Amino acid sequence: MDSVAVQSAPFSDLLILHGAIVFFLQVGFVSLEVGYGRSKNVKNILLKNTVNILLCAIVWWSVGYAFSFGVSSGGFIGTSGFFHDGSLGVVKIWFYSWNFCLATVAIVSGCLAERTSLVAYPLLTLVMASWVHPVASHWAWQRDSWLLGLSNECRFLDFAGGAAVHLCGGLMGLVGATIVGPRIGRFEEGRAKDMPGHDVSSAAIGTLFLWFGWFGFNCGTTYVYLGNMAAAAAAAGVDDGLSETSSPPPPAITGTGGSNPADRVALNMTLTASVSSLTALLFSSLRSGTVDLVVCCNALLAGLVMSTPACGFITSWAAVVYGLAGAAIYLGGARLLVRMQVDDPLESSVVHFACGMAGTLLLGFLARPAYVAQLTGYNCGGLVYGARKGGLLLGLQVLGVVAVAAWTGVFSVLVFWALRRSGRLRVDQVAELAGLDNMDHGGPAYPEFNLVPYNNGSGER
Amino acid sequence: MDSVAVQSAPFSDLLILHGAIVFFLQVGFVSLEVGYGRSKNVKNILLKNTVNILLCAIVWWSVGYAFSFGVSSGGFIGTSGFFHDGSLGVVKIWFYSWNFCLATVAIVSGCLAERTSLVAYPLLTLVMASWVHPVASHWAWQRDSWLLGLSNECRFLDFAGGAAVHLCGGLMGLVGATIVGPRIGRFEEGRAKDMPGHDVSSAAIGTLFLWFGWFGFNCGTTYVYLGNMAAAAAAAGVDDGLSETSSPPPPAITGTGGSNPADRVALNMTLTASVSSLTALLFSSLRSGTVDLVVCCNALLAGLVMSTPACGFITSWAAVVYGLAGAAIYLGGARLLVRMQVDDPLESSVVHFACGMAGTLLLGFLARPAYVAQLTGYNCGGLVYGARKGGLLLGLQVLGVVAVAAWTGVFSVLVFWALRRSGRLRVDQVAELAGLDNMDHGGPAYPEFNLVPYNNGSGER
Amino acid sequence: MDSVAVQSAPFSDLLILHGAIVFFLQVGFVSLEVGYGRSKNVKNILLKNTVNILLCAIVWWSVGYAFSFGVSSGGFIGTSGFFHDGSLGVVKIWFYSWNFCLATVAIVSGCLAERTSLVAYPLLTLVMASWVHPVASHWAWQRDSWLLGLSNECRFLDFAGGAAVHLCGGLMGLVGATIVGPRIGRFEEGRAKDMPGHDVSSAAIGTLFLWFGWFGFNCGTTYVYLGNMAAAAAAAGVDDGLSETSSPPPPAITGTGGSNPADRVALNMTLTASVSSLTALLFSSLRSGTVDLVVCCNALLAGLVMSTPACGFITSWAAVVYGLAGAAIYLGGARLLVRMQVDDPLESSVVHFACGMAGTLLLGFLARPAYVAQLTGYNCGGLVYGARKGGLLLGLQVLGVVAVAAWTGVFSVLVFWALRRSGRLRVDQVAELAGLDNMDHGGPAYPEFNLVPYNNGSGER
Repeated sequence: MDSVAVQSAPFSDLLILHGAIVFFLQVGFVSLEVGYGRSKNVKNILLKNTVNILLCAIVWWSVGYAFSFGVSSGGFIGTSGFFHDGSLGVVKIWFYSWNFCLATVAIVSGCLAERTSLVAYPLLTLVMASWVHPVASHWAWQRDSWLLGLSNECRFLDFAGGAAVHLCGGLMGLVGATIVGPRIGRFEEGRAKDMPGHDVSSAAIGTLFLWFGWFGFNCGTTYVYLGNMAAAAAAAGVDDGLSETSSPPPPAITGTGGSNPADRVALNMTLTASVSSLTALLFSSLRSGTVDLVVCCNALLAGLVMSTPACGFITSWAAVVYGLAGAAIYLGGARLLVRMQVDDPLESSVVHFACGMAGTLLLGFLARPAYVAQLTGYNCGGLVYGARKGGLLLGLQVLGVVAVAAWTGVFSVLVFWALRRSGRLRVDQVAELAGLDNMDHGGPAYPEFNLVPYNNGSGER
Repeated sequence: MDSVAVQSAPFSDLLILHGAIVFFLQVGFVSLEVGYGRSKNVKNILLKNTVNILLCAIVWWSVGYAFSFGVSSGGFIGTSGFFHDGSLGVVKIWFYSWNFCLATVAIVSGCLAERTSLVAYPLLTLVMASWVHPVASHWAWQRDSWLLGLSNECRFLDFAGGAAVHLCGGLMGLVGATIVGPRIGRFEEGRAKDMPGHDVSSAAIGTLFLWFGWFGFNCGTTYVYLGNMAAAAAAAGVDDGLSETSSPPPPAITGTGGSNPADRVALNMTLTASVSSLTALLFSSLRSGTVDLVVCCNALLAGLVMSTPACGFITSWAAVVYGLAGAAIYLGGARLLVRMQVDDPLESSVVHFACGMAGTLLLGFLARPAYVAQLTGYNCGGLVYGARKGGLLLGLQVLGVVAVAAWTGVFSVLVFWALRRSGRLRVDQVAELAGLDNMDHGGPAYPEFNLVPYNNGSGER
Repeated sequence: MDSVAVQSAPFSDLLILHGAIVFFLQVGFVSLEVGYGRSKNVKNILLKNTVNILLCAIVWWSVGYAFSFGVSSGGFIGTSGFFHDGSLGVVKIWFYSWNFCLATVAIVSGCLAERTSLVAYPLLTLVMASWVHPVASHWAWQRDSWLLGLSNECRFLDFAGGAAVHLCGGLMGLVGATIVGPRIGRFEEGRAKDMPGHDVSSAAIGTLFLWFGWFGFNCGTTYVYLGNMAAAAAAAGVDDGLSETSSPPPPAITGTGGSNPADRVALNMTLTASVSSLTALLFSSLRSGTVDLVVCCNALLAGLVMSTPACGFITSWAAVVYGLAGAAIYLGGARLLVRMQVDDPLESSVVHFACGMAGTLLLGFLARPAYVAQLTGYNCGGLVYGARKGGLLLGLQVLGVVAVAAWTGVFSVLVFWALRRSGRLRVDQVAELAGLDNMDHGGPAYPEFNLVPYNNGSGER
């Protein structure tokens, strides 16, 4: 065990740096939500998101991290490492995993913007960070979980959180947006009214902030897999050259080339995001005659989400397919939201829930066996590779997605239903119309700027 | 020596990356000060902070770095490495240390915002970056300094700059804010008038920028300690496995686990910041009925400062105690500032001076011996560990804090007093009321936006 | 070959992290251009730049990367690695090189802001990312290119892209700005009218964003050189200690000290930027009486560009000389632009074209032989070192600059001429006056803010 610590230490050093970059996701989420919100709720949005980061830290330290990565109890939940002092193992870095929890909960935030009470979101954070996400994460990533132990020949694949992060956060957000109900004025006489954000520059730059953080998210995760492989090799006594070098093991699997797997990850996520955004933008421009920045940004994010469960396991051609699927799902999902009169100001439920689910499922078709073997040690892959065990992988993917969705769905409904029953879910009409900053936070966010009157203090325009 | 260079090179490579992240602190300081300032002084604030970065670079290259990390002359000051071409040693990276100097001087900036002359701040930068901070840094961190050589059994501990950075910058800022005097309209008839910033979104996002940079600041510093330990081991001939691997030495000290010490650092700083901010926010909300974003942000920063001298040396439980102390000091200090009619627009002197000092002193109680040994080689710790030498550490901490405070205080008073005597410290009333951007910088920062009249061109509202 | 992969893997891991930081350049370019633009074109600028990132990804994956770093065909162009799955070699990371392509094309964007059609820029991106930049990059950096193979005793030096990135992008921008013509109202009756940006805070913070990204750009590139040196040593069988450690080879060349070369890079770029900006700011303030934030920011960027081709090869004293030259070129170039009535809203052609060229040429005088040898293996240097082969290096630098300028110039003129002929280059007058956001993008970027009437909807003020 000591020797493992030495060999793998550089992986953990890289994860610290990647973790800092992942933290930047929070800056992105905040910029996005502020930009898409109206100026009367800016302070509220900033507070909500900052408090979420702070609460998650305490919850993840006390119980979340232990439930996620502690020694497994029956494959269902971790049970060691509560109130821990540092990492649970050489690649199970507290800091890195905390940032994944943060991202999961931040996704929910956007869906509830501009009308949810100041008490509701912190309560959600507590449930989400201490229970819903850690258990989902345990299932998806802990070696001894029931889901990963189902087969000796293959395993459920979720590279960096299509199910455990995006599906989980996005579904809770969708349930929340539905139960909280739309903002005043969003749907009138059965028709949706556009409610443009007050600072689209903040939103678009926030999208680029998110992309930056996402490189840490996905590329960094490569080292978690490589570290686990190195530790497993060392435990099995297969390791030799490893004890004298700190570098990742040479990619011995045929067909993976001499290239850095983290570079493959960066390429795939970039390609998927690019194809998704350009395709959606082209379709939407041709249809409406307007070249819409929001479509560009949100389809870009949809592509990043699509790639998250997959980018280490697929080829660049498959990444293009992922991007096309991302565009279709985004455009269709955004329409569906409006038709169902669900008010999700950032379209987060489409971007995260639908695309996280789709990206995870598509692996059943497109996972390349050589890459799966390189990162997990299992020799299985997707159906297009005609692999003998292709159906097995697809089955596992379906099972994993259903399990995480059911788990998350049950608690989402429970929590939001309980909050609504207690009358603590939504602010009252006066506060919503006057703006939360004036009501709860001591005044407007931009006290020196002259605002357009008919657009301030009312949801109508 | 050559072999040391080879072994430790990866530490320096990590420090380059962490250094880039630390540079982002400057973006944070600028965003914060712009956001908390009024729109009429935006260009001035941006210029002031950018020029500070530029001047610090030249000063740190020419003399500051040499005074800090050059060969010690009598334990008081470094005397080699002037106008150097690169790093002075494998872990004494110029780039990394420059960013610490930058942070120190940037702290002063906030305290002087909106009324200090364009000449005063660069002059301060020269004194601060060439003399005050380098000498403090030499005392706190150079192995041969008088402070670190006082005892063979223990040493003064300042992990990443509670004394050498935050106390030093914060005290100079406090002296400056006092001598410059309050902005026109800030205190009238003995009562403080609120002067809200013009863009609270910039301020709150700037706080998150700072947190991002701070991960590089604290986590990166871990590798300075590990690199020094490795170099010392190599020099003592104790090194063996090290010559064949570039990874950090295995943590041999009992009780530190197999975890990455940089992960402990990230956890502790996150916990302290979170506990500090949530506690202060809760108290302040209960007291005033307003959930104040500024309290949330500044108490968060107070927690980060508290943790800076300590986060490598304490357990996570101690980090919670640090957070509670941070909240108390922030709330009390901010009240005291107002009562003393000191106008510190960003509350920087409380956040940096008071918390930097408190965090350094608390180590005398809470430093865990095993962690101190892991990072410094000394077997000593805080009083709560009942360590035989506990009183010794506390004494050293008090001595170090007093020494740095006295050193900084003397020069702060001298410099600000001389500037005031020469009439170059403060802009005249007309310029302050009309705004520095219109007077000195060619026009307003937002020429297309319509501003609320009674709030533009006057400090009154 | 396998053993090379193992040894150098850590270089590629560092390049992934540096690549993420380089990506932040895009955030900088966007913030800069948004800030310097007028509020009526904000969405257009954000879309243009985001679409550029997306298109570049697809083009760089499909052909650009192969043309740049594939196996050389006659020293002119690469011909392998189309539609690749990951890196072409241990240090030729796709992700890292893509970011260099992105930067090159983003430079052009600023020159065309606020009046170029929505079709023109993507078309430019296609030509630039698939053909112009990759070939220039092949010449400058691929070991088998005709340019690098001209002499056995020395080679053309372009550390991180003075010619292949900045000259290339800046020249295309200059040609574009000239052919597109000035914005309406910029030059009236032979006199230039100032057109200040609508959010100078965004521009100045964007400058700091760029600086942050630039540390990844230049410091990261150090590892490309070190990786190539290690691979060459391994191929030559000289390698020994290397096979057991992943650290960079010990700097064996006399005179380079034990310091990390990436630290030298960070120091030099910082010094050049600082000297350039402070010098230009001082001159401009004395001349005009206004302390101009734009001069501070753009001269800072000019210094960063100057240092890009040189920062690994020169001493810190030479970096100061570079800074002085940067200030002179920036101030002179900005004046010349106005005199020639070329409307380059961000002065990008001066900052990138003129300074990129000058920085590359100055190496012929100031490259230090020991540093050239450390990073390239060639024993040659600049004229001031009186090196026997000094004239040789200068000749190669002139040749390289002329070759890249001619190559870029021809295609720039062709492309912009063809676009103008087809009538697709520029938007019509009505759209330009009304603002592109209202015409093409569904409404203004800041719908809640009240704008100063005479400044919105018209280029005049």
